Formats: sequence, C-alpha cells, structure tokens
Amino acid sequence: MKLCSFSVKNSYPFSETLGAFVDNQFVDLAASYRTYLRECTDVDQNRVFDIANTLIPNDMTKFLEGGTYSMEAAKKAVEFSKETSPSNDYEKIIYSNDEIKIHAPIKNPPTIRDFLSFEEHFRNSLNASISVDDSKDGTVSLGGTVPKVWYERPIYYKTVASTIIGTEEECVWPSYSKVRDYELEFACVIGKRAENVTASEASNYIAGFLIYNDFTARDTQLSEMEGRLGPAKGKDFCTAMGPYLVTVDEIENVYNLSMTARVNGEVWSQGSTSTMYRTFEDIIEYVSQSEPLVPGDILGSGTVGRGCGLELGKFLKDGDIIELEVEGLGVLRNQIRVNERG
Amino acid sequence: MKLCSFSVKNSYPFSETLGAFVDNQFVDLAASYRTYLRECTDVDQNRVFDIANTLIPNDMTKFLEGGTYSMEAAKKAVEFSKETSPSNDYEKIIYSNDEIKIHAPIKNPPTIRDFLSFEEHFRNSLNASISVDDSKDGTVSLGGTVPKVWYERPIYYKTVASTIIGTEEECVWPSYSKVRDYELEFACVIGKRAENVTASEASNYIAGFLIYNDFTARDTQLSEMEGRLGPAKGKDFCTAMGPYLVTVDEIENVYNLSMTARVNGEVWSQGSTSTMYRTFEDIIEYVSQSEPLVPGDILGSGTVGRGCGLELGKFLKDGDIIELEVEGLGVLRNQIRVNERG
Repeated sequence: MKLCSFSVKNSYPFSETLGAFVDNQFVDLAASYRTYLRECTDVDQNRVFDIANTLIPNDMTKFLEGGTYSMEAAKKAVEFSKETSPSNDYEKIIYSNDEIKIHAPIKNPPTIRDFLSFEEHFRNSLNASISVDDSKDGTVSLGGTVPKVWYERPIYYKTVASTIIGTEEECVWPSYSKVRDYELEFACVIGKRAENVTASEASNYIAGFLIYNDFTARDTQLSEMEGRLGPAKGKDFCTAMGPYLVTVDEIENVYNLSMTARVNGEVWSQGSTSTMYRTFEDIIEYVSQSEPLVPGDILGSGTVGRGCGLELGKFLKDGDIIELEVEGLGVLRNQIRVNERG
Repeated sequence: MKLCSFSVKNSYPFSETLGAFVDNQFVDLAASYRTYLRECTDVDQNRVFDIANTLIPNDMTKFLEGGTYSMEAAKKAVEFSKETSPSNDYEKIIYSNDEIKIHAPIKNPPTIRDFLSFEEHFRNSLNASISVDDSKDGTVSLGGTVPKVWYERPIYYKTVASTIIGTEEECVWPSYSKVRDYELEFACVIGKRAENVTASEASNYIAGFLIYNDFTARDTQLSEMEGRLGPAKGKDFCTAMGPYLVTVDEIENVYNLSMTARVNGEVWSQGSTSTMYRTFEDIIEYVSQSEPLVPGDILGSGTVGRGCGLELGKFLKDGDIIELEVEGLGVLRNQIRVNERG
C-alpha cells in the first residue's frame, strides 16, 4: 500500500485522516472501514465508529502501533473501497487529487535519526567549501578525510519532529541562513518495537519507506558543527517527507532504486540506493542495541553521492521548486520560501 | 509546586498519575480534583471523571499543554488536599513515600536538547583522555581548544525520549561500553509554545526545572564523535530526570543554585548554576528561531565544570549509586547495573 495522510479541502472541522493512494485516487481508510463494518458485519451502529477509528486512527504512528490488526484493517478498507459503489448512502470514501490536501505521512515520529550511509557524499562534503560573509577568508569547509570510524559503525544525528512538512508544502527558509541546500535521501519507517535485534531479523521490523529531503542551511551547519555536537539549527528548521509511506510488500528490492533530484525541472542529482555502504538492516542492528526502536521511528539513509548542492557547488534560492523522486516511492515536491523575519 | 509522576504500589491495573510532593507526602492531583469537583461544585457525578482527567491528565506533556487551565486545576487540587480529611468517602488522595513508586516527571517530551553551557566542562573534556582497549596507543581524547563558535552561539545535541528513567530507577549500562560516566546537569522544561521569542520574553515560556543526569558511555561517545555528527549510542541509552518538575514560582534565582554529585555517598563533583555561560532565556531565543519549542520540550544545561568522571579521571562501575543534588530541585538517585548481554 501507498499509505498517506490527507485532509479534505474546504471541510470543517479541519482534520487529517489516514489514506491509501490507489488507482490515482485517495481512499479514506477509516471511512471505508466504517462502511464495511456497517454493510458487511454484525457490528452494531453504535460501535462502528469506535472500532474503525481505533484500528485505523488518524495518526500514522498510532496506526503502526496497531501492528497486524491495523494493517489488515487497512487492507480490508482498500479492498472494500474497490467493491463499493461511489454513491453509497453512508459517507464519502474515495477522493480525487483535487479534493484533498496531502500531508506528511507521519506527523509525530517518536525519533528521527538520519544516517551518513553514502561514502561519496561524505567524501565530497568534506572537500567542499562555501562562501560566507562573516568568515575570515570568505569561505568555510569541513575539511579532512572520511574518518576510520565511519567504516566501523553507522554515523547519524537526530532531528526534530515539529518541523516536518509533506509534499507540496512550502519549505520556509530561516532568515539566519543564506546558503540553502536540499539532500536527496530516502528513509525506512519502523513498524514494530525492536530492541537488540540482529540484522538478519531486522527486515521484520520495517513497515515501509518514504522519500526524505533533509533541507540544510549549509552556512549555519558548517559553523555549528565546529562545536563538536553535530548539526542543529542548520538542519532542524525543516524536513520534508512523503508523499507516501510505501509498505515493504510494494518494493521488490529497496537497495536498487534510482534516485533523482530536480530543481525547477532541471536534473541536479542522480543516484541509486544500491550505493549505500550499509543496509537499514545493519543500521537497525546497531541502533537497537540497548535502545528501543519503536513504531513510527524514522531512519534516514543520508544523502546519496552528489545528492546535494554542497557537492555540486550550487544552491537554492527563493521560489525554487525542488522535486525528489525515488523509484517506486513517488515524487516529493516542495517550494522554497525565504523568510525575511524569523 | 513540585510536580511528579507516580504509580501506586501493588495496584492493578498499573497506571501512572500526576502528583505533587507536598509536606513530605504525595498528592494524587487528579483524585484530589475529582473529589473537589464532587464535594464543592455542582458538576454532575457523570462528568467529574472527564473534567478532572482532561484538566489533569496522566501525562506531564499533556498537562503542560493545558496551560493555565491545567496549572490552576493542579493548584486547586493541592489546596483541597490540605483541607480534606484523609477518611473521605470517595477515593485516596494522599500517599506516603512507602506507598508509591515515583517515575520520571516527563515520559514523552517532544524533543530533548542538551546544551554545552559550562565553559570549564568543555575545556576540561577536550583535554581529558580515556583508556580504551581497541585504540592504537590505548587512549582516546577529543583534543583541541574551545572553538570560537561556542562563544558565539549555543551548542547542543538531541537525545531520545524512549530511554528516560526517573529517580530510584536503574541505569542499565550497555555491554558495548566499558567507560561509564555521569553528567551533573539541570534542565528547564518548556510550558508554552515558543517561536521566534526574544530572551527578554523567554522566561514566560518556562514551566519549571528538574535535575538531569546525561549518563555517557565515554568510550563509545569519543569514537562516534569522530564521525562529525555528534553523540548517539554514547548517550542515547539512558537519561535520568527528576525527581520532580519544580515550577518556576518555587525557585528564587535559578542561576544561583549549588550542584553536587555523590557516588556511593562520596562527593565527586560540586558546582553552581551561576557558572553557566549563557542563560536558558538566551538559549530559548536562539533555538526558537524558525523552529517551535513546545510544551514538554526539555533543554538541558550541559555538565557543570568538573561535573563528570571524564574531568576527574575516574568512572562508574556495576552497582554504583549516583546521586545528583541541585538546590531546591531535590535529589536524583540511580544505581548502575551493567548489562552483560544487550
């Protein structure tokens, strides 16, 4: 399934609902399941809403916490939506793209970890430099070579959940940054609590995958990383994810997907998930040592080689439209809006 | 108020409730408020539970989200608990220490940021080195001097919420680490959504303070930080917080509190909050630029000078009991248990 989160345009009260993208339309999963319960089961009318909305809640993290119960209910809802007539007496189940606004598939992931899984990106980034006004010689760079530790263990930082955006939402660029960059990534989403699992078991804990754009204020990031604790204000202002959470069963080989970034329609980056140095399964083994991964947790791949402006020597400006496409996962499309004040 | 989270021993079903520590006893805030509604207002019996538990929910983050409504209800509950007779016909409101187990005051903070606010700690840590088996010359260290950027802006990393423990809970040490350290810190807790606020307004957004022990696997941390993205497995396995969330009105001057760490009763560290290089208000101004701080967010001070074993050249072992005391905030007490497997 291509799971998503959407709201119906011009509806009151505003609320997000869990959906599936099927045959170029959007199925309201809870609405379909409610109708299924009413029409095809002996559940009393009084309990239909509670049962459907408990199994298929509005929130993707809660949905994933429901495990097989929730996933099976969603599958049933999709099946039922294909059988039912659009003029049923109960409620609207299927929406066209024009009728809805799509949101980030996961609004409240417990933790977002983003890894440095592509060697070429790390090597290129260390060698790159950017122009900044307030530096002594006008440029800053990380410098150095890929450290030995990178080959020994996954390296990652954690970002915040409060600034996630979905596809077609604006990325508001903070006024403190002038060097605006995207990062072409994808991510895996945890579907089941994992603690001390091995790499060989790890695929059982993955719910699915999504496209991930780790927007980066390069000037801020390169400055603050001299403080030794990793990125913060350089990354935390915005992360784009989506458009869908594509469940594992839809992807034949997640480690052989083409990745593309376009800026205003022009291809800037091209790569493949096959160039990851280590798999998400290896990453899950590593992170889950003495620390639980929980449903809704997001593990970003990190940027594919040549997958950001820093590696290419060019950056984004106000109004630019950036599209990330990963084979089988859709297109994540966002426009940059420079904030003059905040 | 000294707000806390506790559960009643030997009760079923297990559930945590919000409490206040008053006169060496624990008030069940929701229970007290329910009794108050029943005895002193015209709210119908049928609505007492919903109203009380909505204003005073079990979860501290949700409680803080209730703003003044929830805080006023909690104050009323404390007042009422002092007036009511312990033999009231309704439900038990007041518990002794023996009857309850105290938990971390905040279980699900949206984001935990921990800052490097004490210059002496940063300087000492850069100069310190530790023995590790798998390094070439048997020791590793960060090296270098305090970077210029530290004086220009707050430096911080983010940790995970899933491994928080409260006072009297065990800190389970991962088997991958042999160099076990504590960090003597305190933290402020955000009480109201803050975005683009100035330092002069920032105190209005602070709900209160708590003691914070950022347990650190020094061997792991020093290795992984060579990867440039900051600490992860070296820190994320455990953070202790508590015992209370002490509301701002209880602390006369938060920047003049003595701080002490004891290991098995022996004083290892002593310091003062007065040696912070910048205030939480400055930090809130910085972080809230283009990024919301939300109720329940935790901002750790970072370690006070000489407030960890790395600075003292000594570390923790299995069974050690570590107590952090900060004037007015109580004592946070945890025992180390080395995990041989996970």
